[in-house]
Amino acid sequence: MGHMHDAEYSNFDSGSRAEVLQMVNDSYSALADHQDNWVANLANCSSLLWHAYNEGLKVPVNWCGFYVVDPKNDDQLILGPFMGKVACQTIKIGNGVCGTAANTKVIQRVPDVTKFPGHIACDGDTKSEIVVPIIQDNVLKGVLDMDCLENNGFHQEDIRYLENLSDSIARSCQF
Amino acid sequence: MGHMHDAEYSNFDSGSRAEVLQMVNDSYSALADHQDNWVANLANCSSLLWHAYNEGLKVPVNWCGFYVVDPKNDDQLILGPFMGKVACQTIKIGNGVCGTAANTKVIQRVPDVTKFPGHIACDGDTKSEIVVPIIQDNVLKGVLDMDCLENNGFHQEDIRYLENLSDSIARSCQF
Repeated sequence: MGHMHDAEYSNFDSGSRAEVLQMVNDSYSALADHQDNWVANLANCSSLLWHAYNEGLKVPVNWCGFYVVDPKNDDQLILGPFMGKVACQTIKIGNGVCGTAANTKVIQRVPDVTKFPGHIACDGDTKSEIVVPIIQDNVLKGVLDMDCLENNGFHQEDIRYLENLSDSIARSCQF
Repeated sequence: MGHMHDAEYSNFDSGSRAEVLQMVNDSYSALADHQDNWVANLANCSSLLWHAYNEGLKVPVNWCGFYVVDPKNDDQLILGPFMGKVACQTIKIGNGVCGTAANTKVIQRVPDVTKFPGHIACDGDTKSEIVVPIIQDNVLKGVLDMDCLENNGFHQEDIRYLENLSDSIARSCQF
């Protein structure tokens, strides 16, 4: 493709959910191909997801990023790279949507956060949320977390693309 | 102030440059008061700066974040937390605006990036840039980097606030 600025990875044309989310996966794989630094990889991954949802899919994602297992206290998650407003710094494993995904190692798709028992509101404007655990050699390393300003921002169809992305992250990053 | 969502730290009313940039410093200090994790602190700091410039000051900052000394190769910087489009993953110390700030340990305010010898364009739309070194015990730990879509996006007046912020980061973070 000749000379390309890295920023162009964040340019998403409108497309079907399948097309846009596959493009996120392909771009992440290209970026992480020769890089195993988890901070750099997850920072760029947050940017890809932010632009894919907000611009490619016109889904108003207001927060998109990562929490990782706190190296100083494995009972809690600590904030990683993200796009959006200032976020809660730590989340107890087991609490809220992120803490539940971390505890159960099962993806949590929450169409209406007000109905999730013990939901933690870092941003009172969030209406729906999806959290995908990141598992490396059967060990939880962190979670991918996205919030949306509308109910049902994340669809059943998104799950396989986000799980593929989580698998790519687990394969490519040294935590 | 009663119960506050963390996201509210990102809400900046319009104000003078001095007021808005002092608020960034005050908010960063509050957030980092009991937290020394550099990834969490710099991720939230990126969000503060992004919203302060774009919303409080109406300065169109298109990228705002951090590069840190690569733990695997101290001849280069590696991407840290940021807000904006996908970014270059590594920058050789000495190259471009970030690499020059890292090499000289002197803040680089560049009103027109096309006039900076060896400028590295992660995003071809960037017109001006400011890079502030982060120094801990006389050792370079990383740089704060901001890009703007307009020439002269960063003023002489900004320097003391950003240097204070860099000092706070150096005091509060364990890299």
